[in-house]
Amino acid sequence: MPRAPKPTAVVALCGGVGGAKLADGLARVIRSDELTIVVNTGDDFRHLGLWISPDIDSVLYALAGLSDPVRGWGRRDETWSFMAALRQLQGPGWFQLGDADLATHVERTYRLAQGESLSAVTARFAHVLGILARVLPMSDDPVSTQLLTDEGWLEFQDYFVHRQCRPRLERIEFRDAETARAQPAAVAALRREDLRAIVICPSNPFVSIEPILAIPAFRDALRERRVPAIAVTPIIGGRAVKGPAAKMLSELGLEVSGLSVARRYAGLIDAFVLDHTDPPAVPVPGITVSHVPTLMQSLEDREQLAHAVLALADALR
Amino acid sequence: MPRAPKPTAVVALCGGVGGAKLADGLARVIRSDELTIVVNTGDDFRHLGLWISPDIDSVLYALAGLSDPVRGWGRRDETWSFMAALRQLQGPGWFQLGDADLATHVERTYRLAQGESLSAVTARFAHVLGILARVLPMSDDPVSTQLLTDEGWLEFQDYFVHRQCRPRLERIEFRDAETARAQPAAVAALRREDLRAIVICPSNPFVSIEPILAIPAFRDALRERRVPAIAVTPIIGGRAVKGPAAKMLSELGLEVSGLSVARRYAGLIDAFVLDHTDPPAVPVPGITVSHVPTLMQSLEDREQLAHAVLALADALR
Repeated sequence: MPRAPKPTAVVALCGGVGGAKLADGLARVIRSDELTIVVNTGDDFRHLGLWISPDIDSVLYALAGLSDPVRGWGRRDETWSFMAALRQLQGPGWFQLGDADLATHVERTYRLAQGESLSAVTARFAHVLGILARVLPMSDDPVSTQLLTDEGWLEFQDYFVHRQCRPRLERIEFRDAETARAQPAAVAALRREDLRAIVICPSNPFVSIEPILAIPAFRDALRERRVPAIAVTPIIGGRAVKGPAAKMLSELGLEVSGLSVARRYAGLIDAFVLDHTDPPAVPVPGITVSHVPTLMQSLEDREQLAHAVLALADALR
Repeated sequence: MPRAPKPTAVVALCGGVGGAKLADGLARVIRSDELTIVVNTGDDFRHLGLWISPDIDSVLYALAGLSDPVRGWGRRDETWSFMAALRQLQGPGWFQLGDADLATHVERTYRLAQGESLSAVTARFAHVLGILARVLPMSDDPVSTQLLTDEGWLEFQDYFVHRQCRPRLERIEFRDAETARAQPAAVAALRREDLRAIVICPSNPFVSIEPILAIPAFRDALRERRVPAIAVTPIIGGRAVKGPAAKMLSELGLEVSGLSVARRYAGLIDAFVLDHTDPPAVPVPGITVSHVPTLMQSLEDREQLAHAVLALADALR
């Protein structure tokens, strides 16, 4: 009688910096070729003619060990001659492009213009950077996160970078998500026979994870999952570790807590990881809540959180 | 009776580095808003999706005091993080793009894609860099220098940078030059009532000056000139100061000397400036030959050569 394959594969859904850290942790504690990382592309945009995929780059740089540890975004050992010269030419200075980071954008834009898909370019970059995990944009079709604010509709980067999240958020839409084709390899990974766990990384629920879930095939695959799905809080002690998640929760009339995030994933996850410093949680129906250290400052922190998440998944089988 | 306007305006035709130095010298010794610089665009090409205009950039950087004095091309105080990262991504490494220089290419490419003309972008860059002289691409229409070599037809940058001028040259063509529209402001400048001199800068005749002259309106304007036209040798002591001019002369079966260059401009110039270290010249019909120091190592050298050229023009009136 054939045995079911041992569940070894992991799929992580993630956005930018925080999510990329846990994705890196997972890549460090399992055989990294068993890991599929599905990355939000709702923030992607064109700037100065260059196609910029901020979350994909955060994941690539994190897994390649190239992330800047202080700034929290972009590449380590970065230089800034381009921006200085661009300002001299009175070009747009609101979006910071590091000199080395530019190589990613220029080469990606060039390859896309040659007809390569975003997933093919991403796979190529991952390969040359020595990344064994599979890094997949959620879709090769453009999906655009749009924010309705008290200043009207804004594109994500306009809200996030240009206006530094100052406008008050009223509503979010993911343009073209309903018709975008989910990355086939990502959907297949979510339905693998040997799947061990689905991990929703500690990313902003509104603008990093929900754009992925807005694509029907991903929402369906999570609803129909046959393995534990675990989400990790991006909120610790009532604050976002990074970015506007807490401000967004508040402006949308939700409690600023990890549990508010957990509730948004109802029906899609089996367990939610709160930070160990957070108080005991009120129960959320259908979701097991666990407390573990979630702040990732060192590589060891990333690995420990990855271990904890996978142990929780295994315990839920 | 109205007096004719005092001849104060100067038009310079030029290519890259050497030509840009004399253009800068001219800008320093006349009222720089009286100077019109018509720049070769036959070397322009698209690389990694970026529109690169090497000769325009050499002129802009020279006149803005931004040129690298040692390397001879590109910007001073340049950094190279982009190229290092591009190599890491296994992108093309044969064409060196400095980090600050990239701002010029990215911003230009973006503006061209928005529908601005090359002349409008060039004027904008000149303005923000504090350049008062008028810097004009020879045409807003693409003209492409093509070289027939013993390895077949090559684009200019492929020959010049990628193969470092190694292939043996047989013939040169300027694709689309006959139908390109000469820059109207450049043609108008050549026909101004108050024109004092036309200067052909010490640039490679084959690939820097002749692309300009291949556009009929420029050839005609020089033939029909009513003021002295002076060319300056790019060859000193049988060698090109920079670049492949000497190798090209030799491979095309011409004597490697300034006079060979002078003969190519027959009918279009009134005087030719040889370097003061070169021997007395055999006469060239219709061309006055003068010997002055032409090697420009310092800013003072540029100014002295500019003064000498203008004095020669004034003497020929």
